[in-house]
Order: sequence, then structure tokens, then C-alpha cells
Amino acid sequence: MFTGLSAFPLTPMDEHKIDEAGFVRLVTRLVEAGVDSIGALGSTGSYAYLSRAERAKVAQLAVQNAGKIPVMVSIAALRTRDVLEYAEDAQKAGVNGVLLAPMSYQQLKDEEVYDLYKTVTANLSVPLCVYDNPGTTNFHFSDALHGRIAQLPNVRSIKIPGVPASVTQARARVDQLRALIPSYVTIGVSGDSSAATGLNAGCEAWYSVIGGLFPRTALELSRAARGGDSAEAIRLSERLQPLWSLFAECGGSLRVVAAAAELQGLVNRACLPAPLKSASGVIREKLALVIKELELA
Amino acid sequence: MFTGLSAFPLTPMDEHKIDEAGFVRLVTRLVEAGVDSIGALGSTGSYAYLSRAERAKVAQLAVQNAGKIPVMVSIAALRTRDVLEYAEDAQKAGVNGVLLAPMSYQQLKDEEVYDLYKTVTANLSVPLCVYDNPGTTNFHFSDALHGRIAQLPNVRSIKIPGVPASVTQARARVDQLRALIPSYVTIGVSGDSSAATGLNAGCEAWYSVIGGLFPRTALELSRAARGGDSAEAIRLSERLQPLWSLFAECGGSLRVVAAAAELQGLVNRACLPAPLKSASGVIREKLALVIKELELA
Repeated sequence: MFTGLSAFPLTPMDEHKIDEAGFVRLVTRLVEAGVDSIGALGSTGSYAYLSRAERAKVAQLAVQNAGKIPVMVSIAALRTRDVLEYAEDAQKAGVNGVLLAPMSYQQLKDEEVYDLYKTVTANLSVPLCVYDNPGTTNFHFSDALHGRIAQLPNVRSIKIPGVPASVTQARARVDQLRALIPSYVTIGVSGDSSAATGLNAGCEAWYSVIGGLFPRTALELSRAARGGDSAEAIRLSERLQPLWSLFAECGGSLRVVAAAAELQGLVNRACLPAPLKSASGVIREKLALVIKELELA
Repeated sequence: MFTGLSAFPLTPMDEHKIDEAGFVRLVTRLVEAGVDSIGALGSTGSYAYLSRAERAKVAQLAVQNAGKIPVMVSIAALRTRDVLEYAEDAQKAGVNGVLLAPMSYQQLKDEEVYDLYKTVTANLSVPLCVYDNPGTTNFHFSDALHGRIAQLPNVRSIKIPGVPASVTQARARVDQLRALIPSYVTIGVSGDSSAATGLNAGCEAWYSVIGGLFPRTALELSRAARGGDSAEAIRLSERLQPLWSLFAECGGSLRVVAAAAELQGLVNRACLPAPLKSASGVIREKLALVIKELELA
């Protein structure tokens, strides 16, 4: 389940509750498009902002509506105790895999992160994807640490941050990590703007934000790259440059993709948990034009 | 309550529960020493790792055992919805003030942080201290934003990170912030190794980690500085250099202070929530010597 396009849907909500109808609508679009897997409750799914009951509910909704498409959910929390509870809830909901980032308040040390993964993987009966996202966790994995964690039972993939723009450098980066991990552990790229380069450089999966909202667009790119047509993958990614520019302008993808879902009427207005706000003002106006121009749907 | 020595005790715990006896023991030491205020459930008190019920319980224990010393607790959470609940719980527990850091998973924008403080302060009936700690929140306040937030109702103090080592630069830093905030809002320094410099440079409070474990040592320094004897404050701080070195070596104060409390038998062994670990190995051995040499108690 850790190859191809893994689509990460939003979890739309207001200050009181999850917009369950909106979430199911988003998941249904992914199923209809035929993505390779669904990453519910990722960073894009705002897992870190939800209560335990809400996370369990979203995991259940994802599994119930995903048909035959494998579902993974994030089980991360600041405290190991809570991660173990989320792991239990996720498995009860019937997920096919889990995603775990070393969330932090106090910056973590390598041995603390290693022991977190060791404890959690020893208590799992589904495969786990290591989630490396220094922008949200404030933790920087060394490749040596990745190598050690990748040996733990149940570890089957690593979700890495965006790769360098140069194909040569991207390939060097992927090869360097690849040399330190078992062959059955896949490497998946995130940072949508570098997905084509990452896939062309040997990543087996794309953990994708736009895949969660515009699955057909993401699938086209993913299939070109995975099918060996690297030039076509790059062309499709360059076509999306106006969207990547908005992500950069807005300091990341989440607020832009939330605004896009709102603009398309797929979710209720203001679908992110406060204090987060979906993109507004000029960026939102530009976004509406970009969606139209690029025929994203 | 936002002047002088504000002592931040640990919240000792294991993977199952709070070590309530240990916590009360720490608070009682602060009362006996006569600190100016108690900052329970600060970063040193591991607030971010506790459940809502645990945080409410610790706030109650702090208030019940603080005698006439004012107590503040942190009400921070990733989500505004949760901050409002923690604020309610803290006020029900009878705290005299609250501390609020802009905790983040997704990196926050200035307007999001401003609206967080606006919403929370409008729902408070006790004073609030703005907690500026980029190391844990991954959010960097501009002084302009501090200036805007300091105008909000109930804001009465700002807890700033360590100041520059040079007295001139420290004074410039404090003066620059001072010029942008109302006169009734105090500035408190944190980063224990720069406390003497911060107090000498005009900070009215010291939000202190060592104050939570070694209150007499911290009071001596705080009183020297607040009484105008800046040279004595610097001398007392320089005397503690072996401790500051261990903080630096260990990437912060928390793991060292937790180990110190364990070494002194004030709390149970391994008093931090996993994945965090108190200092071990060589650092712990050095710490035991430093405690003895400096006669910390």
C-alpha cells in the first residue's frame, strides 16, 4: 500500500465538530478517481488538532467509505502514551497502515525518537510509514536514524520532505537513504511541487496533498512518472506551477488546499481548526483563477 | 504577580499517572522559600503532554498548596477550542493568572496568533502572560506583534526568551520591546543562564526553571538584581556556570532539572513523559557533582 499515489484528504471541520458529510465527499472523490491509497488524518487532515474521539470517528469514516482502497491514518501525538492509544483506535477502525511523525513540544533527541518508534512498532499489527516532516515536528532525521528505525518490525515506508530541484541531487538524496534501509521499505516523496522530481529520482510513492483534493490531476502525474515517462511527469508538474507558487506564497499547502475545497463547495466555509485560517484575500482570489485556468476539479 | 521570581516546578509523572506527592513536595519547597509566584504547568511542568483532566488536577494541587503565593498555569494547546477549555478549567481551579504560548503543529501566521490571543483574552477573568518561546512553539514573535497583543484586555506580562549576553545589547532588546507595550505590562526573562543579564537590563520578572527546583538559589540572584546590585547578580549567575553548561550540553534545561529532582529523591526516577527522558549517563554524573559543588538544595 506504500507505492503510487497516496492521497491525503482534508478533514473539514468547524469549531464544534467534524464536517462528516464533507469528509465523506472528499473520500468518495478519491475512490472514484482510483488513487492507490488514502492517507486520512495526515497533516492535511489536521489530525494534530482533533480529540481522540474525533480521530477515531474520522478513521472509521475513511475505512467505511474507501471501498477496496487501503487507508492509513496518522497516530502521532506529543506523548508516547497517546500514540499507543491512537494506534489501538486506528487498528480497531480497520485501517491498513499507520503514519507516525515524531511530534514535538520539547525538541526531541535521536534516542528518544528511536525509542518512540521501537515502542510503537512493537505494539502494532499493521504496517507503519515513518513521517519525516521537520516543518511541523521541529525534528530533523539523520539518514543514520532513518536506517535504524527502518529495521524495526512493521516499518514499511518513509515519507520524506521535498527533494532538491535538481534531478541529479534528488537522485543522490534518494539513493543515499535507499542504501541504509531494507529493500522492502519504500520511500515516498511529499512536498507536492517536488513530487515529479522525487518520483523520477526513484521514490516509489507520492504522499500527496493535491491528490486529496484533485486526485485525477495527481494520478496523471504519478502514473507518468511511475510508468517511466519522466519528461511528461515534469511537464505536468510545471503546468501546475501557479499552484506551487501559491503554496510557497502561503507558507505551505494546507491553507491553500482548504480554500480550494471551500471555493469548490466541497466543504463548508472556514474548514480549518482555529487558530488556522484558510487562505483569504488576494491569495484566495488568485487561487480561484488558478483552479479555473488549470481546470482542476 | 508578574514581577520578581516566578518559579516553574516540574510535574513529575510516569507513563500512567502524575506523581502527585512529588508535585506537592516541589510546590511546598517553593512556598517555604517564599518565591514571588509559581508557574505550574509551564514547559518545565510538561503541560503539553498531559490530558485535560491531569492539567486540571495539577492546577488544583498547585493552588491548594501555594498558600498566599500567586499561581499561574499554562493554558496552551494547538487548537483555540482547547485553549478556551483549559482557560475555563484553570480559572475554576482558582489560579491567579494564565500563561499562553502559541503552540503549533502547522507553523502559525501573525494574524492567526493575534486572533488566538484576542479570542482567549476576551474570555478570561484573570491576567495573562504572553509566552514567547520559539524553541517549543516554532513561532517567532515580532516586536510589532507583541505590541498589538499587549494592548488586548487582561494581558499583563510577556515572558521573553533569553536575552543577549552583552548588557548593552540586552538593554537595547528590552528597551525596544518596552517602547511598544503599555507600562503596566511587565517583561520577564527566561533562559536561566541569561536571567541576571535580563534582570539587570530592566526585566521585571524572571520566569525561572531552576527557581522551580532550587528556589533559594534563584531568589538570591533575583533579589540581588531587583535590589540594584547588578554586579552581585552577575557573580551569582557566574557561580552557576557549571549548571548552565549542562543545560547547553543537554539542549535545554528540562532533562537536566528532571534528573536533578530525581537525584535528590524529590520525585520518582524517570519523571518525564515518554518520549522525553531525563539526563542520563555522563551528563547525569556531572550533574550530581555540580549539585554537590554548588550546594544546590
